[in-house]
Amino acid sequence: METIALQALKAAGPFTPATIQRRELREDDVDIRVSFCGVCHSDVHALHTPAEAGGVFPLVPGHEFVGEVVQVGPSVTGFVPGDPVAVGNIVDSCGTCRMCQVSQENFCEEFPTLTYGGTDRLDGSLTNGAFSGRYVVREKFVYSRPTVLDPAAVAPLMCAGVTVWEPLRAAGVGPGTRLGVVGLGGLGHLAVRLGRALGAEVTVFTTTPAKAADARALGAQRVVVSTDRHAMKDSHWSLDTILDTVAVDHDFGPYLRALDLDGTLYSLGYLGTVTVRTLELLSGRKRLASGGSGGHRATQEMLDFCGEHGIVADIEVLPAMEVDTAFERLARNDVRYRFVLDFRSIDDDLQPPH
Amino acid sequence: METIALQALKAAGPFTPATIQRRELREDDVDIRVSFCGVCHSDVHALHTPAEAGGVFPLVPGHEFVGEVVQVGPSVTGFVPGDPVAVGNIVDSCGTCRMCQVSQENFCEEFPTLTYGGTDRLDGSLTNGAFSGRYVVREKFVYSRPTVLDPAAVAPLMCAGVTVWEPLRAAGVGPGTRLGVVGLGGLGHLAVRLGRALGAEVTVFTTTPAKAADARALGAQRVVVSTDRHAMKDSHWSLDTILDTVAVDHDFGPYLRALDLDGTLYSLGYLGTVTVRTLELLSGRKRLASGGSGGHRATQEMLDFCGEHGIVADIEVLPAMEVDTAFERLARNDVRYRFVLDFRSIDDDLQPPH
Repeated sequence: METIALQALKAAGPFTPATIQRRELREDDVDIRVSFCGVCHSDVHALHTPAEAGGVFPLVPGHEFVGEVVQVGPSVTGFVPGDPVAVGNIVDSCGTCRMCQVSQENFCEEFPTLTYGGTDRLDGSLTNGAFSGRYVVREKFVYSRPTVLDPAAVAPLMCAGVTVWEPLRAAGVGPGTRLGVVGLGGLGHLAVRLGRALGAEVTVFTTTPAKAADARALGAQRVVVSTDRHAMKDSHWSLDTILDTVAVDHDFGPYLRALDLDGTLYSLGYLGTVTVRTLELLSGRKRLASGGSGGHRATQEMLDFCGEHGIVADIEVLPAMEVDTAFERLARNDVRYRFVLDFRSIDDDLQPPH
Repeated sequence: METIALQALKAAGPFTPATIQRRELREDDVDIRVSFCGVCHSDVHALHTPAEAGGVFPLVPGHEFVGEVVQVGPSVTGFVPGDPVAVGNIVDSCGTCRMCQVSQENFCEEFPTLTYGGTDRLDGSLTNGAFSGRYVVREKFVYSRPTVLDPAAVAPLMCAGVTVWEPLRAAGVGPGTRLGVVGLGGLGHLAVRLGRALGAEVTVFTTTPAKAADARALGAQRVVVSTDRHAMKDSHWSLDTILDTVAVDHDFGPYLRALDLDGTLYSLGYLGTVTVRTLELLSGRKRLASGGSGGHRATQEMLDFCGEHGIVADIEVLPAMEVDTAFERLARNDVRYRFVLDFRSIDDDLQPPH
């Protein structure tokens, strides 16, 4: 079928509307009318990666979105037209490797098929993201969306939310545990909310004193300005788990020192090569870990938990056609805490699909 | 009091006998007649560190030893003369910091006082190690030694043994868990024995195919020759915990890939700066940790466990005066798996103390 999508024809954009094809429904496919789609830092990165460096254009981003089911393939059993749903950054995986077997499709050994820029496992086509009126996806990677939550504010849960949820659960964060969150952006603000809702005592580390009030409003009991040496020293040995959401290379030492015995620091924001002094891990037997995105089981669990606890992202909604503004402002971190684009009328407004 | 010690007057030695002073007993001191002392890689490192690079001479090494109590200070309640005891690489700590409070004196914030090359917390003197007829040490850092075990073979438990014991316990290694051990030397061979006795299924990684039989004799159910690509690939996702005992910088990637979801690799042999690709931690949410030596509680627990399970180190005993041979052979890894020097008659043979 045809649908309108926002695509960048070259690195740095701009985005322009274009008609793209979505595949005819396979047996287990779900056709979704996209209502809202979040804008993630990785989208900015994709937009600004030149073709010479591996960027692929035309580019249709969008990997955290919500919408309603339009139609389903004949073998779909979990959804019917009209159902409120959400989709994250993974739309398929091998289904047979060790990680798929334990519902960690985000770590699929064959690499999961990404919502955009991925290669479809059946026909080899390149996946186009959800900056679009419609999206067609295997039932397995469609999630039930709690209708008590603002749909637009659910979209960022599908990437930023589950990325912090999985390590929170793996580390056993809950009542009586002490959680640190480094950085208060898309991931960080959700880590604070989810950590508090799980029952942990939450400390936020920020370089920006002005963010202290925001951190407390989100639920943090303690804020440490990381440029304040005395405050950092006072934080030594005080935490069980830290989620570090900083997207650039930085020294983990000060945060490792804030961990108590056998504590774990999850680096979720930076994907490059890290250097760490063994002695910083040795003293207190600290653990450095990572993580990213979410598997099937954890993603639905996170959505259900958010529904029960009324947790959503703090967002700024812009009309889909203001996509360039969103990317430009996100690139300079001018957002609290996530942009969400409104795609509800893009097909009607621009060019009705057949 | 006076005792005979083996000391190196300069880097690279040789060792020569000399009379040294041990302090008069303080209130809580225990005076120990040293019977056997192990030789550790860190002793070789200390011997070969020139004064320009921080080496301190004269050097009296020795930090994993056993012996019998000769006399005790007036406030000592746990030991009487004749008691079989053992001492490790720590002889004091601040006693008040977070890590001391949880009996992890090995991670004392003020740095623990080492058995040799440390600075006494009361009189500021430099500590001399246990390559000697006698050693005087605070009661708190003296451990009861199970007499069912060969005393000489207990000595290496006090450093190599507890260094692997603490992460085994922290990681919850036990029945139903899968343990990997990288490297089959002083630490590695004890990790295999302790891991098996704790009930784990043990896999040894070695670069040397000839060590496969040794690994199995120690209790390993599986041996992977790490230069065999196919065998390494077959090991993917197969382990919960890995103790990496390799003392030189090396790529953790192949071992991280052998970990299952949320598994932890403890690097215990190499103390420099490590570089790790975040993506190798991300896929499967792996954790990189470290550790070293042992706190008070864990050390006694380890000794008691070894007594119950009949676990000791595999050793080669040499007379104390063959210390140079031991160091020279250890430097080229010509030992299975630990040298232990016999100090039982050194004071009588060389120069009776007053």
